[in-house]
Amino acid sequence: MTGQLITFEGGEGAGKTTQAKMLADALEGVGVEVILTREPGGTFGAESIRKLVLEGTDDRWSGMTELLLMYAARIDHVEKLIKPALERGAWVISDRFSDSSLAYQGYARGMGVETVRSVHEVVMQGFNPDLTLVFDMDVYLSLKRVETRAFEQDEDLSRFDKAGQDFHVKIRDAFLDIAKTEPDRVKVIDADGSRGAVHARILNALTASYPEFAGKLGGA
Amino acid sequence: MTGQLITFEGGEGAGKTTQAKMLADALEGVGVEVILTREPGGTFGAESIRKLVLEGTDDRWSGMTELLLMYAARIDHVEKLIKPALERGAWVISDRFSDSSLAYQGYARGMGVETVRSVHEVVMQGFNPDLTLVFDMDVYLSLKRVETRAFEQDEDLSRFDKAGQDFHVKIRDAFLDIAKTEPDRVKVIDADGSRGAVHARILNALTASYPEFAGKLGGA
Repeated sequence: MTGQLITFEGGEGAGKTTQAKMLADALEGVGVEVILTREPGGTFGAESIRKLVLEGTDDRWSGMTELLLMYAARIDHVEKLIKPALERGAWVISDRFSDSSLAYQGYARGMGVETVRSVHEVVMQGFNPDLTLVFDMDVYLSLKRVETRAFEQDEDLSRFDKAGQDFHVKIRDAFLDIAKTEPDRVKVIDADGSRGAVHARILNALTASYPEFAGKLGGA
Repeated sequence: MTGQLITFEGGEGAGKTTQAKMLADALEGVGVEVILTREPGGTFGAESIRKLVLEGTDDRWSGMTELLLMYAARIDHVEKLIKPALERGAWVISDRFSDSSLAYQGYARGMGVETVRSVHEVVMQGFNPDLTLVFDMDVYLSLKRVETRAFEQDEDLSRFDKAGQDFHVKIRDAFLDIAKTEPDRVKVIDADGSRGAVHARILNALTASYPEFAGKLGGA
């Protein structure tokens, strides 16, 4: 079997990073080579583009410039890390990928879903994740989680004001709409619950898409 | 009359930069506000992207990554400098623009003309130069010019070996093909001759497209 690209998407505070590691461990436990990566970033080149995106003031780049820079970083990530891994049969789990551009730039920041999809099609030329898991949970609960994490790490809390909450509701709705638009590729995972409970839901979703793992990964 | 975007294209050593300045002077002489700019670059943001493109070794970026970075720089240039100038009625003369991406990345470096045109369409959304002048001359003559300039400035001459010459022939053919594909927008200028002679040809081409300048700019 050739390698598969599994992407984890959703708002902040839904536990994607932790669950990506747990899934990697589970897959490695049954002898699958796993590459765990993330966006933005993933390669040296992509990180340097990302740095450029973040430099300067908020209005330094327009929506289109930022989208092109994000896709320049993404195609570097795909060509240098993801495709070579898939070609040798490894599975790649990416903590965020193209659906984040679609949700954040396309739905929430007003670039337009069609524009973002057009850039995606031209750049990716048919390359897409094999399976995408959208981590869905109540926005208030996920923001409480992020707030706790930020407090523990002494980070700035300014993004969790009222305006921030409206924005996060938009992002949640965006990911749910993407899942509705592409039901074969994108599955919604209820991200509210213990780590173990969410992990079990992920294994179930994975086994539903890859029945050869039935009874092996621990999924029902 | 609204502002117009005039772009100068063609290989190296054809005198584009000198002629752009002469045309700017001629237009300013009849009361037109002119913004003279160039690619790559033109804005602070575009320059910083350009710097990223040039850093590192030759194989740091794939063709697609480089194309996206070039278009990220271009759309910054368009949104921050070119469009605002056109909107207030100024004319913009750009020393190189999108046809350089098409000729260099699309024709000569094997990205494929269709791929470059697709990226162009998605990013530019119908925005194009009003008039493009392709500076055409014998490749051997233009390389001799560049060689002389490089010698005077003590620059590296390695790019003018035999392989370099074949590459420049490809670039010349590419620009001629672009002119053939879009004859309304793109005019070929014979760039062999004195500065004054080439300038007169440019004024003729401009007056052909903008008859309101007939007898004013000095064109026949």
